[in-house]
Amino acid sequence: MTPPELAIIGGGQLARMMQQAAVGLGIHIRLLAEAPDVSAAQVIPDHIVGDYTDLATLREAVADAPVVTFDHEHVPPEHLNALASEGHACRPGPHALLFAQDKGSMRERLGAMGVPCPRNASVTTLDDLEAFGYPAVVKTTRGGYDGKGVWVVRAAADADEAFASGRDLLAEELVDFRRELSALVARSPSGEVRSYPVVESRQVDGVCSEVIAPAPDLDPALDAEARAIAERIATELDVTGILAVELFETTDGRLLVNELAMRPHNTGHWTIDGAHTSQFENHLRAVLDLPLGPTESRDTWSVMVNVLGGSVDDLVAQRAVVEAAEPGVKIHLYGKTVKAGRKVGHVTAYGPQLDEVLSSARRAAKIFGG
Amino acid sequence: MTPPELAIIGGGQLARMMQQAAVGLGIHIRLLAEAPDVSAAQVIPDHIVGDYTDLATLREAVADAPVVTFDHEHVPPEHLNALASEGHACRPGPHALLFAQDKGSMRERLGAMGVPCPRNASVTTLDDLEAFGYPAVVKTTRGGYDGKGVWVVRAAADADEAFASGRDLLAEELVDFRRELSALVARSPSGEVRSYPVVESRQVDGVCSEVIAPAPDLDPALDAEARAIAERIATELDVTGILAVELFETTDGRLLVNELAMRPHNTGHWTIDGAHTSQFENHLRAVLDLPLGPTESRDTWSVMVNVLGGSVDDLVAQRAVVEAAEPGVKIHLYGKTVKAGRKVGHVTAYGPQLDEVLSSARRAAKIFGG
Repeated sequence: MTPPELAIIGGGQLARMMQQAAVGLGIHIRLLAEAPDVSAAQVIPDHIVGDYTDLATLREAVADAPVVTFDHEHVPPEHLNALASEGHACRPGPHALLFAQDKGSMRERLGAMGVPCPRNASVTTLDDLEAFGYPAVVKTTRGGYDGKGVWVVRAAADADEAFASGRDLLAEELVDFRRELSALVARSPSGEVRSYPVVESRQVDGVCSEVIAPAPDLDPALDAEARAIAERIATELDVTGILAVELFETTDGRLLVNELAMRPHNTGHWTIDGAHTSQFENHLRAVLDLPLGPTESRDTWSVMVNVLGGSVDDLVAQRAVVEAAEPGVKIHLYGKTVKAGRKVGHVTAYGPQLDEVLSSARRAAKIFGG
Repeated sequence: MTPPELAIIGGGQLARMMQQAAVGLGIHIRLLAEAPDVSAAQVIPDHIVGDYTDLATLREAVADAPVVTFDHEHVPPEHLNALASEGHACRPGPHALLFAQDKGSMRERLGAMGVPCPRNASVTTLDDLEAFGYPAVVKTTRGGYDGKGVWVVRAAADADEAFASGRDLLAEELVDFRRELSALVARSPSGEVRSYPVVESRQVDGVCSEVIAPAPDLDPALDAEARAIAERIATELDVTGILAVELFETTDGRLLVNELAMRPHNTGHWTIDGAHTSQFENHLRAVLDLPLGPTESRDTWSVMVNVLGGSVDDLVAQRAVVEAAEPGVKIHLYGKTVKAGRKVGHVTAYGPQLDEVLSSARRAAKIFGG
């Protein structure tokens, strides 16, 4: 067997969907999976099982792979530096990944770049927070996701759990936003950058629920500004692969950067069925320094709705019910055991009428969710 | 690990592309591969390696799989009957597959159904062939593919090799055709049938070279007739999964059935990127008796061009050259070692202008072929 072109650390659904794109491109992937039966290990034959926080395990996984990329942002930076010094191209590299791993560093860097962000400050004590003022959003600088590690603080008592966490904390203004947007770009080590149409992302309880591409009625100037912000961040931070920039569109028509993710992102899943090149294919093309593919939408509207674990345990059996009700909806199951609220798949619908597309995707997701 | 939903016999590119569709649908496939490194074994973790002509090996491969389908039509019918009697649903079943395996049986059955076919006769001796008349196309009834086992006979001497083969032979009139068409349908055990737009298929030396979807300037009555023929054959022969009906469009505007294939077919590869549901996804949905997906084209024109082995040995490295020249072309590599004339991949382009789409796909295939 030829050596892998690429090693992926982490066996979640993002690695699984990278493999879907890799098959056509003929990319041999080596996977480091957390357990034998995780989402991506089910579809990538060349995988080893082990702990990504253990350097020896990482070395074994990437041994004969010239390029390394990631399903998540949790690999310790010192291990990435070690792999890089041993000749593996980590994409994105630890110098870029830092700004997705640490919200404090991200805010500092974006601030220095003049990128519009919510007002923010590092807070160590309640006095710091009082000085910052209420209402505030308090976040752990590291490790938060899907609403975890985030507290909306309107009075001192709301911050108890945050300070009890013992984590480094960041306070941000509670932004009065009209909606959340996401700007996705792919960037290769050679510096080629391509941005996707800006999408609207709708959250429920801090978890992405649905994405509409393109964001309806978005002012073209804001679309261009969001794409320019994402392209500039990708370039100045030397991101390789996909960068997702989550933004607030404020009620007074400004854009503020909320979060960065340096990997294929939930707000880009619509691209598998809805864009000329999926974010997963462009992530692979970018990290392998191949020319990027076109990022335009294939249809007027694409809608992605997450399938969250609900009362249906057997998603495979439920597939037939979904297909009978919504034969045109594209189904993406992640091979995960259903747990309440867990992302276990997504569905995509596309077409000329937004209301039809949206209700079709929602119905399908609801049948899966139960 | 849960038991497989489906076993696939044969590890070629068709099984590989079925796996691409299976990932999203969450279908766990067990593969019987001819060798450890064949095309589909590279992307299906749950595979065993063995000989599909050996019943014990087949039994091991399908052991806990309720449904069995195929990458090719070469599994001995008696083995399929054995698997079926042991409770495995073979889709398509041996009673249908017979008509794809044996051209004599196919001609007899289609003739009885009144389906338009080239004039034909079984020939055992040169006298039989002389009685049939020249020019004739002489074919082995079994095992021919991609122009192998087919002789154009204009005089007795042209038939020497055919008779020397010792195989059962069929003589057919040499049809004066304008072009070759292909009608693809998916049919489920429940009887649901969906047909794809009829395509034009262009052959070089008996090997499919390129496919244009839909067939340009096809009389709508012929499109409807071709689809009706394919739907009727699928239904009356009880085909499950994809059926491809290759047809001649004669110079005087009639349709004649040339060949049948009961599996995803080279003339349907365009559907991966060009139709709402790929033939591979609909094959899986059909053999698992799931509701079928829409078969319409997503774009005005889709063109598929085969990548045949040429002077380029390293297709993976050549990918970057193709992507730089034709960033919008969709690449499908099969993970096969390059040999002269071997199908090692295909490319697809789609868009509103046929001439642009065609030249784009041809250029990309030529860069791969060298």
